[in-house]
Amino acid sequence: MDSEEDYAQIKGMPDDPHTRHRAKPSFELTVPDGDTRERSTCKSCGFIDYINPKIVAGAVVLHEGKILLCRRAIEPRMGYWTIPAGYMELGESVEDAARREAFEEANANIVLENLLAVYSIPRISQVQVLFKARLDDGVFSAGAESLEVALFAFEDIPWTDLAFPSVKWVLNHYWSVRSLVTFAPFSNPSGATGDF
Amino acid sequence: MDSEEDYAQIKGMPDDPHTRHRAKPSFELTVPDGDTRERSTCKSCGFIDYINPKIVAGAVVLHEGKILLCRRAIEPRMGYWTIPAGYMELGESVEDAARREAFEEANANIVLENLLAVYSIPRISQVQVLFKARLDDGVFSAGAESLEVALFAFEDIPWTDLAFPSVKWVLNHYWSVRSLVTFAPFSNPSGATGDF
Repeated sequence: MDSEEDYAQIKGMPDDPHTRHRAKPSFELTVPDGDTRERSTCKSCGFIDYINPKIVAGAVVLHEGKILLCRRAIEPRMGYWTIPAGYMELGESVEDAARREAFEEANANIVLENLLAVYSIPRISQVQVLFKARLDDGVFSAGAESLEVALFAFEDIPWTDLAFPSVKWVLNHYWSVRSLVTFAPFSNPSGATGDF
Repeated sequence: MDSEEDYAQIKGMPDDPHTRHRAKPSFELTVPDGDTRERSTCKSCGFIDYINPKIVAGAVVLHEGKILLCRRAIEPRMGYWTIPAGYMELGESVEDAARREAFEEANANIVLENLLAVYSIPRISQVQVLFKARLDDGVFSAGAESLEVALFAFEDIPWTDLAFPSVKWVLNHYWSVRSLVTFAPFSNPSGATGDF
């Protein structure tokens, strides 16, 4: 059995020559052999620059029965509340990405407990992989991307000041399984696409 | 509450001007304000070409107690067996992507039942979102990317001719929960990174 590496259409790692190649490319839009869609293809080396959906990793973080929320210091939705979450970087796992985002946005070390949700927002080609987690040591504070970070009892969540529809989805989904040790993760609420 | 659209670093949809812009770019590698990593940034419009991990969607597809496997007609790993799976395209959900891949590779209509696994292969910046599913109508045949498609009892799986480590992972993970209606999905087997 071979390495997973062979399965990658594009490695795109920081030390991948294609990554630097993209800074000085010679791309044209063509439909590659055996494909059905137009892709940007490099005329000089044949490299195909596939564009695929992006992954947001994050967590509903609990501490003493309350939920950690961050008020965004950056656009979009500056001033609104969100769970710690953000785009995965190259070379990390989804679990590592969720932990990194909590540290960056809330200076919080978190322990992942369950996969809580996998949402898709097809219109913007985004997949969100969200965990249930707990603060490891009770310590947190506002990171560079947060105006403030605070713990909320469920009934005190600032529902009208949440940053994105999926934040509301995941907080309600968490609440519905809060007493369970094992549960199946959620997908989008029925009919919800994030387009509202 | 605003639309999820505001959350997108890059929309990259087929009708997005940036998608076509990428065919005639003027990129340079710089660290954007507030960022910590080099990104390809367009000198003329400021567009930041973030490169993020890619998502593979797929399914362990059951029919009459047997598992549907496809023998690959394409490189990498041509001639080896895999579950139907492949890279998500823009504008679809993970569920749609898993169904599309089963149809493309095995001419099979499948019904998704559970999220079975979310694996990360950090070295190649890949996340695999894999479902448990069933054939909708019992019909299947080899698609363009498959040499043949067949149903295997678990004990008859061609273990030494599987295409990728994660195929072995997911078949064993499926087997361990085959009698359960509700279960938590799996992440990588302990210590396994796909690097073998």
